[in-house]
Amino acid sequence: MNGLLKDLQTLISQPSISAKNEGIEECSILVSKMLKNAGVSSEILRLNKNAAPLVFGEVRSKSNPSTTLLFYNHYDVQPIEPIEEWDDPPFSGRIIGNKIFGRGASDDKGELITRIKAVEAYLKEYNDIPCNIKFCIEGEEENGSENIEAYLKKFKKKFSCDGVIWEFGYVDTKNRPIVGLGMKGLLYVELSAKESIRDVHSSFAPIIKNPAWRLIDALKTLRTSDGKILIKGWHDDITPLSKNDLKIIQREPFNANDFKKEYGIKDFVANKNSFEAKKALVAGPTCNIAGIESGYTGDGAKTVLPSSAKVKIDFRLVPKMDPKKQVKLLQRHLKKNGYADITIKVLNAEAAARTSTKEKIVDVVCDSAKQIFGDYILNVSNAGTGPMHAFVNVLNAPCVSIGSSFIFCRMHSPNEFAKIDLLKKTTKCFCVLIENFSRSNSRN
Amino acid sequence: MNGLLKDLQTLISQPSISAKNEGIEECSILVSKMLKNAGVSSEILRLNKNAAPLVFGEVRSKSNPSTTLLFYNHYDVQPIEPIEEWDDPPFSGRIIGNKIFGRGASDDKGELITRIKAVEAYLKEYNDIPCNIKFCIEGEEENGSENIEAYLKKFKKKFSCDGVIWEFGYVDTKNRPIVGLGMKGLLYVELSAKESIRDVHSSFAPIIKNPAWRLIDALKTLRTSDGKILIKGWHDDITPLSKNDLKIIQREPFNANDFKKEYGIKDFVANKNSFEAKKALVAGPTCNIAGIESGYTGDGAKTVLPSSAKVKIDFRLVPKMDPKKQVKLLQRHLKKNGYADITIKVLNAEAAARTSTKEKIVDVVCDSAKQIFGDYILNVSNAGTGPMHAFVNVLNAPCVSIGSSFIFCRMHSPNEFAKIDLLKKTTKCFCVLIENFSRSNSRN
Repeated sequence: MNGLLKDLQTLISQPSISAKNEGIEECSILVSKMLKNAGVSSEILRLNKNAAPLVFGEVRSKSNPSTTLLFYNHYDVQPIEPIEEWDDPPFSGRIIGNKIFGRGASDDKGELITRIKAVEAYLKEYNDIPCNIKFCIEGEEENGSENIEAYLKKFKKKFSCDGVIWEFGYVDTKNRPIVGLGMKGLLYVELSAKESIRDVHSSFAPIIKNPAWRLIDALKTLRTSDGKILIKGWHDDITPLSKNDLKIIQREPFNANDFKKEYGIKDFVANKNSFEAKKALVAGPTCNIAGIESGYTGDGAKTVLPSSAKVKIDFRLVPKMDPKKQVKLLQRHLKKNGYADITIKVLNAEAAARTSTKEKIVDVVCDSAKQIFGDYILNVSNAGTGPMHAFVNVLNAPCVSIGSSFIFCRMHSPNEFAKIDLLKKTTKCFCVLIENFSRSNSRN
Repeated sequence: MNGLLKDLQTLISQPSISAKNEGIEECSILVSKMLKNAGVSSEILRLNKNAAPLVFGEVRSKSNPSTTLLFYNHYDVQPIEPIEEWDDPPFSGRIIGNKIFGRGASDDKGELITRIKAVEAYLKEYNDIPCNIKFCIEGEEENGSENIEAYLKKFKKKFSCDGVIWEFGYVDTKNRPIVGLGMKGLLYVELSAKESIRDVHSSFAPIIKNPAWRLIDALKTLRTSDGKILIKGWHDDITPLSKNDLKIIQREPFNANDFKKEYGIKDFVANKNSFEAKKALVAGPTCNIAGIESGYTGDGAKTVLPSSAKVKIDFRLVPKMDPKKQVKLLQRHLKKNGYADITIKVLNAEAAARTSTKEKIVDVVCDSAKQIFGDYILNVSNAGTGPMHAFVNVLNAPCVSIGSSFIFCRMHSPNEFAKIDLLKKTTKCFCVLIENFSRSNSRN
């Protein structure tokens, strides 16, 4: 674990905001160098001019060259807004006690560093590794992983493997790693209403239509106030949870008060109890307003009738919902309800994916977690989104998520942090996991 | 009209955004100096630390010292956002052909300059003025004229007069000045919804409430999609238009196509015809979204669940609606509909006012307009808002609006401008108006 924190600080201090194409190229070079310093051969793969470069890494095992474990990670980060809410500069990497702060501290630079350091430690100690290790580190996960499927297809041989460790994993408030078997899908759209060619004095409101009102009228047709989506056909393709899934969900601990305290909230959507909350996190489709903007939003009063309005909506999808089909349903819904004038721009579209508990990598990850952390929690699907669907489909490899991110690490929010003890423990866990994975695969 | 354009450029180049308290003090000093240079004695009045200074000006007439006309104007301007939509810097005062561009070019620095120049011209030519002239130039009109009533009360004697010329007046596309007899009132509020103490990863949307949705749900209860306000009791106190009002409205020309072309719109709210549109502009209460903001509004996608959401709404009021009572109705409405958690912040509150056609100053203004422009249009009430109510009540003086602002001068919007020929013509009109006003009052 030599230099884990220093290297993580170096990574955090290199901005890499994919949504704004800020520092992406630079960060890919930095990550590739870091792999090489750890003893991993690395190259930067490219797809086309618009795709962020992808960092590939590989170490071949002398003792078990027929088994390969692939670590999937990303070097890009979320935007830093709202900037004024950060206590330190977003790319500071400042350490306070057991925490290291900064955008990407957990998501995903913290996770990446534990994997690099585990491989480095192994190579230093034994001058070999129990099985082949590959790294697939993309640069646009936070912007919808638009090109990951094309990358996997183009370099399919390079990425061939027997199992994938997903880019992140949560650790709960009782230090139990959450072993995750799935990811939700995502359809992220921007809806816009436009009326006039420029903002108008609001005294004309009696006669000129207001696009903010127009957008709000359209939005109100999308869901009920307790979050049920009203778009016709939206839920048609959903695979319901199996009995086994429900059992796993039932077993999963969930401390509602932790959530409420962390976010300063009083109650959940539609007053969900813990089981309903867990079920919704695993398998509930959502229609979330991620952002809305129109007109004058500065200080004081400006009497203006805005020329346009836009809203960003992220719909989380669950298995068997096809994002392309869901876009069409949204289009049809707006048209049928008289809002054909509202423009839809798709910013992200990813399908959901889940790995079966029958895959042996699931046991390998669970056993390794138990060995190092003493306990673990099995989770049918994370509430978030990632391109797991592409890995499962193209590489035909099972994907399991385990990592070092504290469950309330302010991922995607100001003051994101990683817990230092968890970073170290997770690094150890990966050393054990590599051994166990090698053993499990060579037994066959 | 010596130096009219140069002085207007000087005024425009001094920012004076009351909503942001930017350049207010500096602009009041500049205006006071400009009055003195024109031969008008001037002093800067102060109410308290929070009130913008008010510039007072006065010239006493030797020939008719018993009649006083007061010009009401303001030296503050609207904010300049959206900045990127200006072709030139907002405070440039750039002249292109017959137009002078910049924030305040029309509203209200252009109007102010015509009045100063009319008085200056008179004094230079005759070393006297037909009646006493007073200037009341406030610095927070664009921010709701919060203190004008208190100023008028405190300095009531100073401001005593026989009639008030309002701070602006429109000129239509056929070069006919619009003689305005009233102003709508305004209730400008900011509604806020707050849920969590910080932005949350949107994967938690199945369980954590979204304040943007909350606000939208509340907004949807306020009005129908064609603009009818649904707040109980909202319209109860409205004085309906008189037969005489309706006659004047009927006579008023209105070219719907001018509007549509200017703003690039296809049709009016609820497909209003010209008479309905005119009636609504004069006497229709509105509920306009001037701005809305929540969450991530930058480029690309950010999967965030916002911690709060806010909307700025301006309600235009018509005679006999009391803004204080209307706020209470809004509060009651939100509470009754289950939105007691939505916070209401009042940013502006002004009642409407109208001057009767029986006041002799109305004839004076109409005659003067006809003399210089060849024609004029009588208007029962402007669709916008101003503190006319305070002048009528405190000074007990009739108020009439006439001025130089081209009807599509992009007031409050990017690329605001004034037409140079109208500035000059209006200055002449004020010379005649001062004479006519003196004559009309001394006849009694």
